[in-house]
Amino acid sequence: MKADRIYNFNAGPAALPLPVLEEIQESFLNFAGAGMSVTEISHRSKWFDDVINDAVARVKRILKLDDRFHVLFLQGGASMQFCMVPMNLLGAGDSADYVNTGTWSTKAIKEAKIQGKSINMVASTEDRNFSCIPQAISFSADAVYAHITSNNTIKGTHWAHFPETGGVPIVSDMSSDIFSRSLDIEKFGLIYAGAQKNMGPAGVCLVIIRDDLLARTPGDIPTMLRYTTYAEKNSMYNTPPCFAIYTVQLVLKWLEETIGGLDKMAELNRKKAGLLYDYMDQSGFYRGTAEKESRSLMNVTFRLPSEDLEKTFVAEAIKNGLGGLKGHRSVGGCRASIYNPTPLAAVEALVDFMKAFERKHG
Amino acid sequence: MKADRIYNFNAGPAALPLPVLEEIQESFLNFAGAGMSVTEISHRSKWFDDVINDAVARVKRILKLDDRFHVLFLQGGASMQFCMVPMNLLGAGDSADYVNTGTWSTKAIKEAKIQGKSINMVASTEDRNFSCIPQAISFSADAVYAHITSNNTIKGTHWAHFPETGGVPIVSDMSSDIFSRSLDIEKFGLIYAGAQKNMGPAGVCLVIIRDDLLARTPGDIPTMLRYTTYAEKNSMYNTPPCFAIYTVQLVLKWLEETIGGLDKMAELNRKKAGLLYDYMDQSGFYRGTAEKESRSLMNVTFRLPSEDLEKTFVAEAIKNGLGGLKGHRSVGGCRASIYNPTPLAAVEALVDFMKAFERKHG
Repeated sequence: MKADRIYNFNAGPAALPLPVLEEIQESFLNFAGAGMSVTEISHRSKWFDDVINDAVARVKRILKLDDRFHVLFLQGGASMQFCMVPMNLLGAGDSADYVNTGTWSTKAIKEAKIQGKSINMVASTEDRNFSCIPQAISFSADAVYAHITSNNTIKGTHWAHFPETGGVPIVSDMSSDIFSRSLDIEKFGLIYAGAQKNMGPAGVCLVIIRDDLLARTPGDIPTMLRYTTYAEKNSMYNTPPCFAIYTVQLVLKWLEETIGGLDKMAELNRKKAGLLYDYMDQSGFYRGTAEKESRSLMNVTFRLPSEDLEKTFVAEAIKNGLGGLKGHRSVGGCRASIYNPTPLAAVEALVDFMKAFERKHG
Repeated sequence: MKADRIYNFNAGPAALPLPVLEEIQESFLNFAGAGMSVTEISHRSKWFDDVINDAVARVKRILKLDDRFHVLFLQGGASMQFCMVPMNLLGAGDSADYVNTGTWSTKAIKEAKIQGKSINMVASTEDRNFSCIPQAISFSADAVYAHITSNNTIKGTHWAHFPETGGVPIVSDMSSDIFSRSLDIEKFGLIYAGAQKNMGPAGVCLVIIRDDLLARTPGDIPTMLRYTTYAEKNSMYNTPPCFAIYTVQLVLKWLEETIGGLDKMAELNRKKAGLLYDYMDQSGFYRGTAEKESRSLMNVTFRLPSEDLEKTFVAEAIKNGLGGLKGHRSVGGCRASIYNPTPLAAVEALVDFMKAFERKHG
């Protein structure tokens, strides 16, 4: 940990790799010899073309995307995708399946319904307080897509295995676990992810869309809400969020060149989460809230014996340079978000602190 | 000019005040003592609350907005507002007036029509190649709003005086002249502005909306496309573009505390534009493309005697540390964008260069 920096367990916006932040800082007044800040260069310049093209190439390489897939950068976060997905993919007479695994799935469902789209909620774990991912789901053979939330930040669950849909393309909100593990891309038709957890700052949303779904985009919806607008113009129909895309580019470069690629990243993520879950499982003091087989590798949610102890835990943690451990305001408790950029040393420091706290208060 | 920086005349993204860039750079690894970068702090934290609340307060103070006005930060740029304005403000049976003064007005009109909204194009200067602003317009008494583009970046024109609409609220795209001069706010119902010209980096769009227009927002459109969603949650229904809002806050602080407020800013802008236009008018070598009474104070568009000379001009300018002088790709020629952050010294350096170039090639 650098002298005046903390270990940051925020759920998003979240920690970024320190070498990325340092590179941004160092070149902030003069980007790539342009004599301008990266915030001042034209999006129509060679400088920015290099940034966005490199970012797109890295996304394709990391996720092993073939030419059927288009890599787009949009604004409005995943919340805008909740409305754009059904608006673009569901025409008259079409319907889609949705699986409800928590707050964000619920919102995605709501935005489809607001538009009067026909959707089927084929599974939900609401009756189990969203503490797990549903099993053995029957997807509709005629669904245009099957929507899931691959990782649920608030309840700390994730899909350990992506479902068999009988060929229906999965549309997944991957805001909180994109680039954290490898994917069988054949299952997916569209992936979207707000950047501010695993790959960048707030202000840009990655959308990966397959040709056959892109072809469904209607021509009579507003230009800025059509996926084709972005696909046809390399995400630059209008001025894109340049700084956020630049930061994403640097994070993906760090993932490939410093971490060593997606397999190495996934291995590190399993190790980080394993440290926390293994310790919690034998402690008796800390209690994980997600069911074991659905546990997220990104958001480790847990309770202490009392709410008072939880408050003390969060307060003492920050005094020890460990920030962002409060659970989401809708559920309380504690949460350690350990996305890609969170170093192993941060998790080790957290486990050490948890042990000391248990000794003192257990 | 700092040793390795150029004078930047880009049309957007554009120059930012050097002290703002330096402050961002200096605190980039540790924002306000948080031990985190401003890109890593939670939008639900006290740190970010202070940023967005200060930004909102400065917008209200600079433009002398009373409590009827709501200050919102959205994503998607002005292009997203082209669709959101009619989507939110025009119900069944409603209609609005639009004035066409160039590329961006044309796009705003197109996005209203795509949605099947009833609009009247009450004036256009297309027949004069958009080289001026129309005069003596008859606005419709029953229009919900009258849409204008206050400054036209491509053709280099602006509304020197805002039109009398007989009480119909003006909705204005002010992306390229927001905060460049004082406004009679009584005339306006909604103002929108992409940040990347006069107030920040790309990735955030300021929307100022009056109570009576906000009340028109329908409840049955997607959540992220409703103005009320942003008004009810201080622009934080979902994660906002934190870094871009933070930069806007710093630019507005610079405008108030370093420049000395909007009147001083306007005076400086008149002086900067005056230097360029006065020189061009007496040169005979450079020819302004906008009609005199409609000349923009932000985008000074001009031609040289030949396209070859224009190419040479742009190429030699960059060798002299003057960047971004090429005209928009749709019209050619040259353009010096001199938004708020462009210092007087930059314009003086440009005029000196233009004189030397004229002596050599004239």
